[in-house]
Amino acid sequence: MNQPASAVETFRAIDVIRKKRDGSELSRGEIEGLVHSYTKGETPDYQVSAWLMAVVLRGMTRPETAALTDAMLRSGEVLDLSSLPARKVDKHSTGGVGDKTSLVLAPLAAAAGVAVPMISGRGLGHTGGTLDKLEAIPGFNVNLPVTEFRRVLETCGCAMIGQTAEIAPADRKLYALRDVTGTVESPYLICASIMSKKLAEGIDALVLDVKTGSGAFMKSEKDAAFLAKLMVETGERMGKEVVALITDMDQPLGNMIGNALEVVEVVEVLRGHGPEDLRELCLELAGWMLSLGGVAKTVAEGKERSAHLISSGKALEKFHQMVELQGGDPRVIDDAKRLPQAQSTVQVASAKSGYVGSMQCEQIGTACVILGGGRERKEDSVDPAVGIVLHKKVGDQVAAGEPLATIHYNAEARAARAWQLVEASYQITDAAPAAKRPLIHRIIEKSGEAY
Amino acid sequence: MNQPASAVETFRAIDVIRKKRDGSELSRGEIEGLVHSYTKGETPDYQVSAWLMAVVLRGMTRPETAALTDAMLRSGEVLDLSSLPARKVDKHSTGGVGDKTSLVLAPLAAAAGVAVPMISGRGLGHTGGTLDKLEAIPGFNVNLPVTEFRRVLETCGCAMIGQTAEIAPADRKLYALRDVTGTVESPYLICASIMSKKLAEGIDALVLDVKTGSGAFMKSEKDAAFLAKLMVETGERMGKEVVALITDMDQPLGNMIGNALEVVEVVEVLRGHGPEDLRELCLELAGWMLSLGGVAKTVAEGKERSAHLISSGKALEKFHQMVELQGGDPRVIDDAKRLPQAQSTVQVASAKSGYVGSMQCEQIGTACVILGGGRERKEDSVDPAVGIVLHKKVGDQVAAGEPLATIHYNAEARAARAWQLVEASYQITDAAPAAKRPLIHRIIEKSGEAY
Repeated sequence: MNQPASAVETFRAIDVIRKKRDGSELSRGEIEGLVHSYTKGETPDYQVSAWLMAVVLRGMTRPETAALTDAMLRSGEVLDLSSLPARKVDKHSTGGVGDKTSLVLAPLAAAAGVAVPMISGRGLGHTGGTLDKLEAIPGFNVNLPVTEFRRVLETCGCAMIGQTAEIAPADRKLYALRDVTGTVESPYLICASIMSKKLAEGIDALVLDVKTGSGAFMKSEKDAAFLAKLMVETGERMGKEVVALITDMDQPLGNMIGNALEVVEVVEVLRGHGPEDLRELCLELAGWMLSLGGVAKTVAEGKERSAHLISSGKALEKFHQMVELQGGDPRVIDDAKRLPQAQSTVQVASAKSGYVGSMQCEQIGTACVILGGGRERKEDSVDPAVGIVLHKKVGDQVAAGEPLATIHYNAEARAARAWQLVEASYQITDAAPAAKRPLIHRIIEKSGEAY
Repeated sequence: MNQPASAVETFRAIDVIRKKRDGSELSRGEIEGLVHSYTKGETPDYQVSAWLMAVVLRGMTRPETAALTDAMLRSGEVLDLSSLPARKVDKHSTGGVGDKTSLVLAPLAAAAGVAVPMISGRGLGHTGGTLDKLEAIPGFNVNLPVTEFRRVLETCGCAMIGQTAEIAPADRKLYALRDVTGTVESPYLICASIMSKKLAEGIDALVLDVKTGSGAFMKSEKDAAFLAKLMVETGERMGKEVVALITDMDQPLGNMIGNALEVVEVVEVLRGHGPEDLRELCLELAGWMLSLGGVAKTVAEGKERSAHLISSGKALEKFHQMVELQGGDPRVIDDAKRLPQAQSTVQVASAKSGYVGSMQCEQIGTACVILGGGRERKEDSVDPAVGIVLHKKVGDQVAAGEPLATIHYNAEARAARAWQLVEASYQITDAAPAAKRPLIHRIIEKSGEAY
């Protein structure tokens, strides 16, 4: 096994690996050389995985992180949406359980006059994915070619698709390698992966929803804040306005988990109803999107305007338009029975009286995956109908025998395993929990300044 | 890229990578699983290189190092030399410049009644290799099959060959991967690589010559001692007697560097002549080999006996026998002109009067590589005739214009570059150097105890 030749004569992968291994800062050129030679197939997997492990254990400086993000971004096509007069703003979440805010926010911000070119992912692990939720709507096409994506965006102000082959191909290749080499868990690599894809959308600004708690990838607020600052600073270095909200994922967001069920809850919120935590987070995130999108002077004004767009029905109208333009059946909005329905339901009742002291949020996400509502491996298919409806959340009082949740299922054996997980995820205490975790822990904007 | 399937259902490479990444100790089973599945081609390069980098940066415990050594050892054939009544003892050096002690020690220890089954390597980087030196002798065959190796060993008590495909195949595969992934420089991996090959020789005891100084891989005595202790302890855990001598490589050993030239110096030492440092180190190492080989009660007795075997001509006789048995032309012993001769020589003279204050030893090794006497890449071939003869070493007085060294070369352009390196490697000072570095820095035996 000899040192593979590189097209760029001066680039030697082995030197870049050694330098990072020894804790030195890599130059922009060295990082570009590695990313581009890997994308082109000139540097082999086994060299890149050694480098990735060195990055996991040695970390990266801010300039290195920005250079990596930039190199990954420029490995593919960067959408040019400059012909659209509106400011382009997107929102990205690091993933959670019951997090369906994207489906509310895209039409809501679009209704306010912001352009939302949203490129989303599928669920992986215990978390759900925006694309899987959209596909619960019969006919909805998330695989639009770029020209069609642009047409939908021009027509209704928002469009929601999956990653195309042209967007950040280096990220796709690197992510697949990280997945099998134990190099996923690095804030630097996570930052570069997220930011390279998002900035390839041709946006002006980005609102990041960084989750923390038992259902998040970053369990501690400290880790979430570290990643959030890293992404905000990286975005800034690349000339974009980025804000990060560190929000709670210690229990599921809203009451419904599962693809079709979450569409139902999205419509509820767009009608001005739905659970308070979900509604509140949507308004907060929308407030930031409108503010960064230049259609509201302040975040508070953006929130107020968003609430009005919901009560006036404009946001729901926009959702209707987007669903229709992307081939989906908009009749699901008024008739939830047109969404996929699970064959059976079973209730999880409380064994004793008391209060919901806490919920093991990741377990509830895993229960949904077990039902078939998520995927353990990328190539798994998803059952849109199954899921979990929560009747009790943290702080709620519950009587012995009273239902905590309802499981919607299509396979008996899976339901039994999911039932156990959901049951175990509820911790019932005698007294009401003393302190309530805030919905929004921190907001980080401009060079890691937090307030 | 999905998690590759493994034949051992319970073994998942990704779990082993993550565990090492997070700094936990791996079990013997986990290390065996990784080494064996890699050797069999079930675990791909890109997973193993990530694991290797995690080992480089996280280190290994003693039990992990022993488990890795053992798994690599058992990846191939372990020679069974139990039919030979004599104790089997080998010597291994971590590599240096002008280090030709193996060629002296194998026949010397064999003449004393110790069996020396020596499997050696080729030169790499600035260091020379025993196989290249042996091949300078016309006809000498280092590629004996195992049956022939055994026959030579039985007949004359020593045999010197290169690594066969059957010995520690995991090491060959791992080393090739380490070479291109920046994961060579780990004492744990170096220890496992050396010890797995040496213990596969079916030896009872091993004398390690761990070099330190400007011409060694371990420049500092601290690093050399760390590696030495690791190897001694690993050998002990595997039931072998191992001693490590930390010896000086801050200047070349002896006066001759280059394959045929070194054979000339070996014969000089076996005749009771040759430079003092080389002679002294050979006797010290031989003393340990004889002691561990059970033919001398103490190291001092072993040294004395070795000196006698040289003065009586028995050691040279044994060398003659081995050369002949391995197909080499033994007439080179009495007629050095039968060894390959370089076409030309050029002298490096001192620019000023004074003392040799120090020598940059690695540069002299590199000068020999540039002449064609070593290899930069494994596939390079070696010119046996070229090399450098030193006339002055550290502490020697020198007059302006007096020769420091003579370069033996076959290509003008190479000679010019080598000349510059040799010239620059000599530091000439006004006063004699105050303190002389010892030839033997430390001796480490039994669980890292140093005295």
